[in-house]
Amino acid sequence: RINSARLWDSLMEMAKIGPGVAGGNNRQTLTDADAEGRALFKRWCDDAGLSMGVDQMGNMFMRREGSDPDALPVYVGSHLDTQPTGGKYDGVLGVLGALECVRSMNDLGIRTRHPIVVVNWTNEEGARFAPAMLASGVFAGVHSLDYAYGREDLEGKRFGDELARIGWKGDEEVGARKMHAYYELHIEQGPILEAEEKEIGVVTHCQGLWWLEFTLTGKEAHTGSTPMPMRTNAGLAMARIFEMVQEVAMENQPDAVGGVGQVTFTPNSRNVLPGKVVFTVDIRSPDQAKLDGMRAVIEAKAAEICAPLGVGCAVEPVGHFDPVTFAPELVSNVRAAAERLGYTHRDLISGAGHDACWAAKVAPATMVMCPCVGGLSHNEAEEISPEWAAAGTDVLFHAVLETAEI
Amino acid sequence: RINSARLWDSLMEMAKIGPGVAGGNNRQTLTDADAEGRALFKRWCDDAGLSMGVDQMGNMFMRREGSDPDALPVYVGSHLDTQPTGGKYDGVLGVLGALECVRSMNDLGIRTRHPIVVVNWTNEEGARFAPAMLASGVFAGVHSLDYAYGREDLEGKRFGDELARIGWKGDEEVGARKMHAYYELHIEQGPILEAEEKEIGVVTHCQGLWWLEFTLTGKEAHTGSTPMPMRTNAGLAMARIFEMVQEVAMENQPDAVGGVGQVTFTPNSRNVLPGKVVFTVDIRSPDQAKLDGMRAVIEAKAAEICAPLGVGCAVEPVGHFDPVTFAPELVSNVRAAAERLGYTHRDLISGAGHDACWAAKVAPATMVMCPCVGGLSHNEAEEISPEWAAAGTDVLFHAVLETAEI
Ligand SMILES: NC(=O)NCCC(=O)O
Ligand SMILES: NC(=O)NCCC(=O)O
Repeated sequence: RINSARLWDSLMEMAKIGPGVAGGNNRQTLTDADAEGRALFKRWCDDAGLSMGVDQMGNMFMRREGSDPDALPVYVGSHLDTQPTGGKYDGVLGVLGALECVRSMNDLGIRTRHPIVVVNWTNEEGARFAPAMLASGVFAGVHSLDYAYGREDLEGKRFGDELARIGWKGDEEVGARKMHAYYELHIEQGPILEAEEKEIGVVTHCQGLWWLEFTLTGKEAHTGSTPMPMRTNAGLAMARIFEMVQEVAMENQPDAVGGVGQVTFTPNSRNVLPGKVVFTVDIRSPDQAKLDGMRAVIEAKAAEICAPLGVGCAVEPVGHFDPVTFAPELVSNVRAAAERLGYTHRDLISGAGHDACWAAKVAPATMVMCPCVGGLSHNEAEEISPEWAAAGTDVLFHAVLETAEI
Repeated sequence: RINSARLWDSLMEMAKIGPGVAGGNNRQTLTDADAEGRALFKRWCDDAGLSMGVDQMGNMFMRREGSDPDALPVYVGSHLDTQPTGGKYDGVLGVLGALECVRSMNDLGIRTRHPIVVVNWTNEEGARFAPAMLASGVFAGVHSLDYAYGREDLEGKRFGDELARIGWKGDEEVGARKMHAYYELHIEQGPILEAEEKEIGVVTHCQGLWWLEFTLTGKEAHTGSTPMPMRTNAGLAMARIFEMVQEVAMENQPDAVGGVGQVTFTPNSRNVLPGKVVFTVDIRSPDQAKLDGMRAVIEAKAAEICAPLGVGCAVEPVGHFDPVTFAPELVSNVRAAAERLGYTHRDLISGAGHDACWAAKVAPATMVMCPCVGGLSHNEAEEISPEWAAAGTDVLFHAVLETAEI
């Protein structure tokens, strides 16, 4: 078993960096707080005897040697970046849980045949720079480096510039590494495990996603002196699209969701009808046909909504991944580890996207999940118990040892 | 007649300060560009022999002496601040038209019994700091100085601090001045004059306004892993309120309008359902009962929309004025001046709010309007012809001379 007190201490230590406003964290990617979090993580890895590699996307690879010089490493990790009002565990548990596995191997004098690499992926959240899982996506060959470097935040700052600014642009070519396998521990971010009182989620699949960035073009005009029939009201078109997305998601329930998290009005003045409204529709489903069907319906209906209002409607996908099936042999390892350790468990489809989804493109991959209170995540009030964290990390530990071979 | 070429030159000169991105202006109140615009205006007033007074709200009063030391001044003006993507004439025409009247009096050697004061009111637009017409409102005793100083922009900067920062916090007690009368020239900002081919709008009334700031409280949660029935979606509630405001306005047409120009999502991340959504509903009507009735209906229906979604709904009025009836004798002066000068004209109800609405609380007041292309305002493409500007200023000139007595 891993050292659960040490794991919890590390989680609490990391949570001091980039504090939020309500008990959680604001350690968004490529901010000064991100750099501080990385430095602390590196110090811990140094202490655990790991050697560091950093690639041109800022992905951190912390290596523990194995006994077989020809064996490919087993990668274990997640991300240290958070949402602007994020929790203390989303991603962080996966990185520090992986570190705890290595620390426990050191304590127990365990030597594996395959090297172990603890990884911290850059910009998993996609909060500051869309899409999510950007750096693991470049690693998996899904995005080009140029595409990633050119992504802009809402202030127009570019990913590449910000990565250089915080001092974490490494030399390694992105994706040059070969993985024997990839494991990721994460909180569920949904309600199922807690509701069913299961300690472990054995993640068999991940649902797919489209992020559709809508740019609606209306006509800026005075809210007081412009008669109702003369308005070209992009805000009204937006409202109707929100309602339509809700309807489409409800019709495709329960294996589909849809919503909007980000909106920008221009010029955003109380007495000006907006000339431009930009927002991102987030739709997901584990069913590929359903996912793509929802996208098609939403785009068609949005056009129908905008046309009679005279509002221009352009749609650009700014994030996408297909539904993922994780590697059956690794999934079995996770299930077997939970059994062996006596933890209650059930199979799960991940509702959120994870770096494991892209890692699965280049290696056998899977995930371990633990419950979170009320299924709440992407909220500063996100909470887990030390026991849940320990159970998840125990299972991760055993599954990784199985694959890395003692 | 006034000197229309000089007037147009001044308009074009002022438009160089705080240029917009599409041919208009971004000279928002209490910015560096505002300070620059004020300095240019002061230089022109100095050249015209006017003496300056500045009050604690930064209102600029530029005085031309009259022949009777006991006569109260006739005030003439408007505002030099603009929307973030504003036009070159909204407000500016009223200030520089007033200056042109005084310049023409100088040219023609006209001495009036009453002094003339050309006025530039601070923060008419209300774009950066709600409410609109803030400084004329303090002047009229509608708002306290403390209230005004404490108003915050979206970045949390305070009006009082920004006024001091740009160096235009004067010494004069706000509202201490007494006015014999107040005239304001403004572009219509609506479509009626152009459509009916009238050169002059004789403004008899101004419609009233409510700005209702809604703060909707949802629950921040993951857009992917939060099942549809578990969402507390403040963005969806907002969409339904937008649609409802549109319906209420349409039902009360043609003498009512309603819309939304400003929206802020928090945390505004693509994969987080918003925990907080703040937006301002702008409703107007020249009919007091209708205006207040719409407010009551909108607040009641918004509560009905939010309740079943579990979304919290708080409403704070951040701007309000009752419908205004302008002083009949001044209105007659404007109509008579248009007749005398041979300009086509019609009576108008102002769709937008103006400093004249607050001045009307403390003195006889009215307005002169000229057409604008396509009724378009609060848009960088706002346009008027030099002839329209000249006609409006000619009428202003004659009406002011009538009241100021030659
Ligand atoms: N796990 C997680 O919250 N990832 C962010 C990407 C997503 O929105 O699914
Ligand atoms: N004239 C003008 O645009 N004033 C701004 C206040 C309002 O929204 O009516």
